[in-house]
Amino acid sequence: MSKRGDLDKLPAQDLGSVNTMSGDHEVVAGGGLLHRRIFLQGGGLAAAAFAAPGIARAETLDVPAWTKNPEGYFSGYGAPSRFEADVQRGPIGDQNPLYASGPGGIRAPIHALEGMITPNGLHFEITHNGIPDIDPDAHRLVIHGLVERPLSFSLDALSRYPMTSRVTFVECAGNSGALVRPTAVPGNAQTLHGLVSCAEWTGVSLAVLLAEAGVDPKAKWLLAEAADPSSVSRSIPIAKAMDDAMIALYQNGERIRPSNGYPMRLLVPGYQGNMNVKWLRQLKLTEAPMQTRYETSRYSLLLDGGRVAQYKFQLDAKSVIVRPSPGMGMNGPGLYEISGIAWSGAGKVRKVEVSADGGQSWAEAALSEPVLSKALTRFRMPWRWDGGPAVLQSRVTDESGYVQPTRDALIAERGQKNFYHCNCITSWAVDAEGSVAHVYA
Amino acid sequence: MSKRGDLDKLPAQDLGSVNTMSGDHEVVAGGGLLHRRIFLQGGGLAAAAFAAPGIARAETLDVPAWTKNPEGYFSGYGAPSRFEADVQRGPIGDQNPLYASGPGGIRAPIHALEGMITPNGLHFEITHNGIPDIDPDAHRLVIHGLVERPLSFSLDALSRYPMTSRVTFVECAGNSGALVRPTAVPGNAQTLHGLVSCAEWTGVSLAVLLAEAGVDPKAKWLLAEAADPSSVSRSIPIAKAMDDAMIALYQNGERIRPSNGYPMRLLVPGYQGNMNVKWLRQLKLTEAPMQTRYETSRYSLLLDGGRVAQYKFQLDAKSVIVRPSPGMGMNGPGLYEISGIAWSGAGKVRKVEVSADGGQSWAEAALSEPVLSKALTRFRMPWRWDGGPAVLQSRVTDESGYVQPTRDALIAERGQKNFYHCNCITSWAVDAEGSVAHVYA
Repeated sequence: MSKRGDLDKLPAQDLGSVNTMSGDHEVVAGGGLLHRRIFLQGGGLAAAAFAAPGIARAETLDVPAWTKNPEGYFSGYGAPSRFEADVQRGPIGDQNPLYASGPGGIRAPIHALEGMITPNGLHFEITHNGIPDIDPDAHRLVIHGLVERPLSFSLDALSRYPMTSRVTFVECAGNSGALVRPTAVPGNAQTLHGLVSCAEWTGVSLAVLLAEAGVDPKAKWLLAEAADPSSVSRSIPIAKAMDDAMIALYQNGERIRPSNGYPMRLLVPGYQGNMNVKWLRQLKLTEAPMQTRYETSRYSLLLDGGRVAQYKFQLDAKSVIVRPSPGMGMNGPGLYEISGIAWSGAGKVRKVEVSADGGQSWAEAALSEPVLSKALTRFRMPWRWDGGPAVLQSRVTDESGYVQPTRDALIAERGQKNFYHCNCITSWAVDAEGSVAHVYA
Repeated sequence: MSKRGDLDKLPAQDLGSVNTMSGDHEVVAGGGLLHRRIFLQGGGLAAAAFAAPGIARAETLDVPAWTKNPEGYFSGYGAPSRFEADVQRGPIGDQNPLYASGPGGIRAPIHALEGMITPNGLHFEITHNGIPDIDPDAHRLVIHGLVERPLSFSLDALSRYPMTSRVTFVECAGNSGALVRPTAVPGNAQTLHGLVSCAEWTGVSLAVLLAEAGVDPKAKWLLAEAADPSSVSRSIPIAKAMDDAMIALYQNGERIRPSNGYPMRLLVPGYQGNMNVKWLRQLKLTEAPMQTRYETSRYSLLLDGGRVAQYKFQLDAKSVIVRPSPGMGMNGPGLYEISGIAWSGAGKVRKVEVSADGGQSWAEAALSEPVLSKALTRFRMPWRWDGGPAVLQSRVTDESGYVQPTRDALIAERGQKNFYHCNCITSWAVDAEGSVAHVYA
């Protein structure tokens, strides 16, 4: 499971009794899944012993070169280690890799990340026509339409309002869409599912600003428009605007970055990514939705029989195992941690189950606290790989009781013309050499 | 409160009834503090109206230059806006600003941040002799001493163990130490209190690794040593190691950065920052503490009468208002949000109170959810500034019932020779021009 190849450089040694405790692990499902109590403080204590390559009886304590060399530089704004240079976002498809004019995107390396927070430098991004270079002092947010008082806010004016923070995921409606294709695309966690990220966002509750402008009772929708060259615009139900929508100014503590909407974006937790309109410049209150390009020809679900599911905003529950995943080979039989992310636009993750035998048997994974509404939730499952073929799957249930569907069930419901909102179970096949591949199972 | 100066560039306009709702705000303490219910969804709705410079009746919706110019570039690893170039960490004192050899540090710009998460590029850093450039494949963590099986772990071996994530603050024991000086230092939030940050850390529970090595019942302490050229080493009680200590590998989702301990650091939540030993290379279990330099001549509290409080590990509860704070001028009378951070090494923040009249009267602030144990907690307080002099203070109470002391009370207890663990109340004076300064009150 190393991303640097074989790290087992220590000479083979007698590991003595290190292995002996492994009999304590309780097998809870097929293929070697172990009880999640190994993650609990007391349980883990008695049940450790992940004897693995790279663990060795300590003989000496060498002093490496870097301990003898007192040099180094601080920086006003830091960067990752040079040894992590391969942990990068990757462009979508064949687009000119980094030029963002026209529709494009860049996927988060979810296979290399841990926990629930996506660092800002690795948050996924989608643009529809470039990244505008906005002067924050000149930018204005205008609220108008069916209001008592059309208002224009500078960034400084917004900054005096009561703020609120929340950890929430943003996911592109097209994320995971390749799973509707007839045969399994040979992708990995990043290329198949990397259009989702999670951050702590801080800004002004939209309900507060709408109260400031005075909402005409006839207003049932609002149009949110971006200041980018494609003028991305989406119709948002007024009920969502009054519920948990936010004009976000900060992402993980610092100002939102240009490609994520600097200096401000709309945040509609749990809704399609593009509805979290970046570079937000106007909110126009209306009686009806506006039928913009981005809610007609894009981001609507084309069903069988010529039907279209339009205005399906909420992203249903999804989960994916990110370690192991394609490109990250197993390093010999033994104990591993299966690690993955789960989320739901409907609220909190209630539970995640994992299967190592292609869905024949399931066992419940441990969830990392805090489990937050509409946020990525990290799940973990101990697994003793016997060195034989296995098919790994995860299945989330959210607090509404919704259960992540199989691929067959999702396609039976929607057909294969639509690739939006694809949230079916992903299967990773492990072969006897320890390679991992995307399969349909 | 603008950090870009006067942003009120719109022509003065009739704001109509925008001001009229402000009478709904309930004053709850002296100097114009308002009830925190303004932050609640329903309450905020009825009680908005922060009429302020920069808010104007919207007349036109101009199309700015950046909307006409479809260009921009993605990057594999992103960066903040060029307009945020002044949001930087700042060096301590007169040290060669960025060269890290010898003891040095760099402070987080806490005045410019929001929420609870510190982005990795702005996390504070302290080094004792440079930042080692560690090859993660060659690095080993050795656990030895009073154990049944001395063991050596590669990074890859550690990565197979069950992991755990938690959001926790790290704070230098010397943070805020200037407040013991006889006269108030003319600093700001960053220079006085910027040696604290908060991140989501992920790694392997130390209890699991100690179980793997087998703890000799005689072991009551362990020595944690860094691989940096100063070999920072600290004695940790075995009880803490078995409780919530972690070998952290990830910070806010990505690998820990070099200056924060790449590829691994010890995390002892709520304890002095230096005990979260970076670049961790050995844990040696012992019967007694080792009396290293960093627990004798450094990081012990020199009290009056020649006494020393050694092995005081836990950081007591502290809070500080970061907005407004020195360097961030007020922009005319009216409604503002007071925003700050609070934390405690003992557990969760129970409440934060704010005073606008130098401690004569107090009112309870709103806390941003989730309130997590040993994590930064964001507090917010609505305030109507009348344009006259005011003294802003905050006071945290943690879940143990401990209340942040006044400066006089802290000095009465410890004297003024010691500057470690300084957690007294900070006072910011606002004058009639809207300037903010550090004072003793």
